[in-house]
Order: sequence, then structure tokens, then C-alpha cells
Amino acid sequence: MTSIHDLATPALLVDSGALDHNLAVMTEALPGERLRPHVKATKCTALARSQAARGHRGFTCATIREMEGMAAAGLGEDLLLANEVLDAARLGALDARVTVAIDSPETIAAAVRGGVREVLIDVNVGLPRCGCAPERAGALGDAARKAGLEVRGVMGYEGHVVGLEDATERAKRCRESMALLLAAHADVGGDVVSAGGTGTYACNTVGTEIQAGSYSLMDTAYAKLGLPFVQALSVWSTVVSVSEKYAVADCGLKSLGMDHGNPDVEGAAVWFCSDEHLTFAPEQPVSVGDRIRVLPAHVDPTVAYHERLHLVSGDEVVDVWEIDLRGW
Amino acid sequence: MTSIHDLATPALLVDSGALDHNLAVMTEALPGERLRPHVKATKCTALARSQAARGHRGFTCATIREMEGMAAAGLGEDLLLANEVLDAARLGALDARVTVAIDSPETIAAAVRGGVREVLIDVNVGLPRCGCAPERAGALGDAARKAGLEVRGVMGYEGHVVGLEDATERAKRCRESMALLLAAHADVGGDVVSAGGTGTYACNTVGTEIQAGSYSLMDTAYAKLGLPFVQALSVWSTVVSVSEKYAVADCGLKSLGMDHGNPDVEGAAVWFCSDEHLTFAPEQPVSVGDRIRVLPAHVDPTVAYHERLHLVSGDEVVDVWEIDLRGW
Repeated sequence: MTSIHDLATPALLVDSGALDHNLAVMTEALPGERLRPHVKATKCTALARSQAARGHRGFTCATIREMEGMAAAGLGEDLLLANEVLDAARLGALDARVTVAIDSPETIAAAVRGGVREVLIDVNVGLPRCGCAPERAGALGDAARKAGLEVRGVMGYEGHVVGLEDATERAKRCRESMALLLAAHADVGGDVVSAGGTGTYACNTVGTEIQAGSYSLMDTAYAKLGLPFVQALSVWSTVVSVSEKYAVADCGLKSLGMDHGNPDVEGAAVWFCSDEHLTFAPEQPVSVGDRIRVLPAHVDPTVAYHERLHLVSGDEVVDVWEIDLRGW
Repeated sequence: MTSIHDLATPALLVDSGALDHNLAVMTEALPGERLRPHVKATKCTALARSQAARGHRGFTCATIREMEGMAAAGLGEDLLLANEVLDAARLGALDARVTVAIDSPETIAAAVRGGVREVLIDVNVGLPRCGCAPERAGALGDAARKAGLEVRGVMGYEGHVVGLEDATERAKRCRESMALLLAAHADVGGDVVSAGGTGTYACNTVGTEIQAGSYSLMDTAYAKLGLPFVQALSVWSTVVSVSEKYAVADCGLKSLGMDHGNPDVEGAAVWFCSDEHLTFAPEQPVSVGDRIRVLPAHVDPTVAYHERLHLVSGDEVVDVWEIDLRGW
């Protein structure tokens, strides 16, 4: 048995009890096809396999590499690339059911050229990112069908809403976004209305499927929302230097996604991160060699830095999962 | 010949002319042993090899993995781990000259236990991170020698100074930091006074060697300092969606270090980054399928996300270098 105290640091830890809890809560809320887990947050086919075992057979991906890795892992029953791509040939070559988001004539042409057969019309529901204007969705759907593509329906990601801390406001703005998506869906047709994320998994009752990913591991940003998911992910770090007013641990900018700000350390104030260092002021004295759990502010870009995650129960490492969907 | 237009995106590009310029300028300023290039910014033994070919045979590392990779690549003539570690056994096993920073009795004991023979006393010169108080350096040096270690001298990183935009202020505060390091050196002895970074390579005349790394590739943060180094690094990206007021390219939080803020795109205002997206408002219209160069704000955590960098001359990819020193 490997103990976490024997691991080289920094190392990603996933509390297996917390993970199980999160997976179970979500499956109860959104069973089977109601959830299309997004793999971008975790980039780990082993974790996806445990989601599939709970009945979620369709998955959402953000990159071609994620699609390839999921197909290679035998998890290609119904893969959605919820993103626009111009080089779809790698997708067309996959031994999997592949659906790709399109929002323009160019992405329709790319899907056809690449040998992709099924698409969703990606609709902008308020986040200034990909997706066509809602009123253009019908025409794009027609154009896609005319080009020989099967149009399964629509998708629209309310990414500007999922992180709102006020639950009432979040639900209200989610409804507004989904009204746009429903209008587009009326024009496009098809069985699928794909939407949502961890922050709106409960209030988004419009999506036929919800693309949540972060719920399985969680981060300190989502923790502020009062969701029934618990923090499963941490970066295990060693205290390498101690001064009078602060201490330094061996994780930093290359083991933590920083776009949501500094990570948290329980019982300590985090001062700043450097490439391989975290400077923090602990409330209780720490010693060189002590190990601490650092809680990332944003799960997705944190996981993407690491080669593997260590599934732990207490201090025991019960499994090691490769983060095998990194890169592009 | 591969053209950059044939690359899958996002992809790291390094302009070979700009890289050559940066390497040449630095070697002229700090020839041979006066520069101990830091590999943490680039994590690439092929790039280190080109620095070694210019006469810099000693290198600085931030992680054990970097030390291992440099030794395995035959670049182990004089490797400094400018960082504190508790698990030094992997260092002691290397077929290389290994020097490690120590700043406490615990890190002295770790070096001895791990079979490391040479150390530098790491001195805090103002950055609240690793390093002993200057007045403790002499005693630590004595303790290290008593423990059987060879003490080569001192190191102290003025990391709180290297990014100051005002050159006069930067030079002044660098002098103040280096006064602390010199005082410690007087107590410790040894031949080596290792310090500095890209921002202070010229004004730090105290260090017998300068630990600069970012100068070779550069980023938009260092670009503000008016240094004679040019931007060599960019993230090559494809425009995948275009709306009335903005466009979206396929690079984001997983291909860009974000701790220094958003990247730059020439001729455009960057709005925000998502995991795999960059939303930006271009001054001139762009089309789906266009490709753009995105300039990272911070080179180190950007490079650490990528598997390889593409050395380019104009539109031609002249070489592909693995970023082979990632992880821990």
C-alpha cells in the first residue's frame, strides 16, 4: 500500500469518498442520458469510466484529443464535441458515434469534409463565445441537412450564468438563456437540447441533457455556490521552507490553474504563487517536511498540468489514474 | 516542409530568428559561466543545448524532474537546483554534477541523506519565499560543511525586483537585495554568488552568475521592461467562430499561463479566456479559419501546458522541440 506521505510532490489527490458522493448525487439528480458528463474538467478516461458505469453513456468533449482518447478507451458510444473545429478529419476517422457543434457555414463544411455525420447547432445564449445568434439557428440547421448532415438538435452553454453565486439570480438568468435555446430548437428540430454545467445542473430543466463536468472533483470557485458537491480534488504539497511570518510549499503556477485566483489552504492565508512555490501564512506553526492540501480555485486548468491523479482513502493511495486526455 | 498553416492548433510557435537574437544578446552580455540559464521557463533540453553551444555549460533548474531530464540529455556538467527539496535521493542518483539550494537544517539533512555533495546557501534577499535570513547564512554554511557537504557559495533571487517596470527603481532595489546577498556571502565563503533573472541580467553586477531563463522566449510582462529581447513565443490559434462584435480562437486557459492576466493579440482587444477559447475583438474583420498569434503574458506556465514547440522561420516549421522537462 502506498501512503500519500510517500508520494513525490506536488501531486494531485482525489478523495475517493468525496468523488463517490459527487458522482452519486449527480446521478440521482440527472440519471442516465439526462447527464452528458463533460470530460474537459477531468481529462481522465478512468474517471469517465466510473461515470459510464453509473449509467451515463454519452460524453461531452472540448477538444479533438479528448474525443480520440475517449473513443480509444471504448467510451465512444455517443461523443459530443461541444466546440467548433475546422480540422474535422480526425473526428471522422474515429471508431465512435461522433457529434460535433457547428455555428457557421465554415464549420458545416468542415464537418462534411472531415467525414463527421452528426451535428448540433450551437446557439449563443448570452456568453460571448461560440454559437450562432438564436434567430440564425434554423437556417443553419437547414444548411447542415442540405449538406448531408444529421442534425440532432441544439446546444447552448450558459457559461456566463453557471458561476453566479446568488442561486435565485442564477436560476432566473438560466431560464432567460434557455428561452433563447428553446426558440432556436423550435426552428431547428431534433431530439437533443444540450446545455448546462455544474452551476446550473439543478435549475436548468430545459436541457434534455446537462454537460456538467466540474461537479465530480470541484474547486473553490464552485464551492461558493452551495451545491451539494464536496471538494474531492487537492494538490498535495510539501512545506520546503519556513520563515517567521510565512511558509513555502512546493506547488505553484505550474500545478494550479490561476485564472480564478489563488488556491486555498485550510487554516492559512495564501499570499502568492510562483512557478513552483506557494507562499502562505499558517495560523498554526508548520515545519519543513510537513505536507498540506492545497485546494485549487479552478479545477479544469489545474488538472491539465498533471500527468496523473491519485485516488485516496484517508492516507492510503487506492488507485492511480492517468490524466490521459491532455493536449490537442 | 511543414507550414504553420498545416499545424493542429493550439500550437506553440518559437520564431527562430527572435530566439537566435535573444540568445546572442544575452551571451554577449553574460558570456560563458556568467550566465547559468534557468530551464524552468522553457523546460526544453533542445533549447538548453543551444544555450550550451553558446558557452553556457551550467544550468539552473526548479524541479527534480528538470534536473533528471538535463542529466539524461547529457547537459549535466554543472546543474543547480535553485530550490529546496526534502526528497533528494533522486538527485544523489544522477550522473551529473549536482548542486542544491539549502536554507534550513532539514534541507541540509535531506541533501546528505540523498547523497548530494554540493550546496549553495539560499538567502532571502527580499522576496517572501525560500531562503534563510541573511544573518543566518554563515551558521547554515558551517552546519552544511560539518555535515560533510561542499558549500560552493550563496544564491539569492530578487524575484520581487525583476518585474519592476521602472529601470532605475529596478536597479536600485536590485543593489539593495544584492547587498544582503554579499553580506551573507562574506559569512559563507565559496566561489559562487548566484542570483538574478531576465529583468535584472544587466543591472545585477554582483552575481558571479545570473539565473535568467525567460529572456530566450519572452512574454508580454517582460516586454514592458524595455529589455533588448524580443517576443519569440506565441500560441498559434485558429479562429473557430466569428460574431458581429468579437471572434473566438481555439486557445485558452489550458494553453496559456494566466497568472499575469490575459494574453495579447496584435490588432485586437482580448476580452477573456475560457478553457479552450479566447474571445477577442479584432480591429479588422477576421474570418473563420484565419489563424492568429497569441502572445502569452507569462512564458513559464504557458510552456508547461504544451508537449512541444515548433521552431519557425516565417511560415515554415524548421524544427520541433519536445518540452521534455515537464512534471515533477
